[in-house]
Amino acid sequence: MKITLIGGGKLGEHLYKVLISVGQVQLLKWVIRSREESLTPEGINIVNKIDQDEKCDIYLIAVSDNSIKEVVQLLPKDSFVVHTSGSISLKEIKRDRAGVFYPIQTFTKGSDVNFSEIFVGLESKNSKDLMILKKLAKHIGSKSFVLNSSKREQLHLAAVLVNNFTNHLFAEANLICKKNNLPFDILLPLIKETVQKVEKLSPKNSQTGPASRNDSETISKQIKLITNSRLKKIYKVLTSAIQECND
Amino acid sequence: MKITLIGGGKLGEHLYKVLISVGQVQLLKWVIRSREESLTPEGINIVNKIDQDEKCDIYLIAVSDNSIKEVVQLLPKDSFVVHTSGSISLKEIKRDRAGVFYPIQTFTKGSDVNFSEIFVGLESKNSKDLMILKKLAKHIGSKSFVLNSSKREQLHLAAVLVNNFTNHLFAEANLICKKNNLPFDILLPLIKETVQKVEKLSPKNSQTGPASRNDSETISKQIKLITNSRLKKIYKVLTSAIQECND
Repeated sequence: MKITLIGGGKLGEHLYKVLISVGQVQLLKWVIRSREESLTPEGINIVNKIDQDEKCDIYLIAVSDNSIKEVVQLLPKDSFVVHTSGSISLKEIKRDRAGVFYPIQTFTKGSDVNFSEIFVGLESKNSKDLMILKKLAKHIGSKSFVLNSSKREQLHLAAVLVNNFTNHLFAEANLICKKNNLPFDILLPLIKETVQKVEKLSPKNSQTGPASRNDSETISKQIKLITNSRLKKIYKVLTSAIQECND
Repeated sequence: MKITLIGGGKLGEHLYKVLISVGQVQLLKWVIRSREESLTPEGINIVNKIDQDEKCDIYLIAVSDNSIKEVVQLLPKDSFVVHTSGSISLKEIKRDRAGVFYPIQTFTKGSDVNFSEIFVGLESKNSKDLMILKKLAKHIGSKSFVLNSSKREQLHLAAVLVNNFTNHLFAEANLICKKNNLPFDILLPLIKETVQKVEKLSPKNSQTGPASRNDSETISKQIKLITNSRLKKIYKVLTSAIQECND
């Protein structure tokens, strides 16, 4: 399977690494528009223009959401163009052969991702192309499932909650630790248990703490403790949300 | 080391399990005020009254915050009374021999906790008693550190953020999944990576997603997607908070 990868951001970097590591995939080129033409240490050409005569099975587009359509317009007609975004509907891609390959994961510099532990949501305008996407997922060891655009945007929202928002709560906790000269590591066993529980129990049955037991005394104490208005808002909104879900 | 455990709630149950499992601790009795007197399968007496003549090294109190002082009053004078709460200041316990044994963990029915992976914050009114608490932590395999009441309440707040609030975000994501007929398991690799990242990188450097890259188009799209006002508030507050921390 011949692939041209487009995009040199965090997802692009991670896709590059996995694509060159599997035998069944031949990575033809890595298109990074903002970079000088060069060769990767593994001998793949980095280019900044699309070759219209190139024959490849998939153009895999890992650029920011608002650049996807612009990039698609640069790609050869009749080629199979596939984006990787959680929030761009397939309808928006005005091509007969368009698809989505949405890895449900967060990609960060400095944290390697094991694709064999990831789910990938697939969508395409025709069923033949869907088979190509299924194969690609299999080649990189990921579990895949068909996911239409409307469900994909819902799943993307859920992903923002469990990753971006959760990570922000960790950041706020980290600030509290720093201010009090306490190492953040003290919280790691608790964070791990939070996740381990959710693998065994439903999140609703896992809920503990002052909000879930309607312990108004501790809640008022904690609100008083918080000096910064950003955290105060977070505390109040999430406490009310837990209490509402308790009912 | 002779211990009387007081409280039959979630923390009490978990403490019971670990206390009977270590050789260096002798659990004299388990006081559960709301239960009939009986014998546990492991042969420990469950009682609902305090024996004033009992000699034990620690009365370990794992009852709800608003019952702690009431329970302390029932305990023999000159005994070492130790509560396990994150938010009750040691000053509030009007005894010469009082202490705190605060395990930084969430305790849930149906999820066993490995005490050897937990940090316990210790505090006591005198240094001799602090040694007893350090020993207890060592006996059950936990890492311990001295934590005064004011830092303890800050750490408790941080624990609420990383556990209770995070778990609520999981609950909201679970509702989205259910509504869209998607298994919550799809999100587990993402949740695990969120935690794995925070062990390697600071939460600030781990942040990804629409809010952190100021992707206002995706943010407005997602706000429109959310039909329930509770989640809309959470989304807006956490998105603003991430953006504020970006600056």
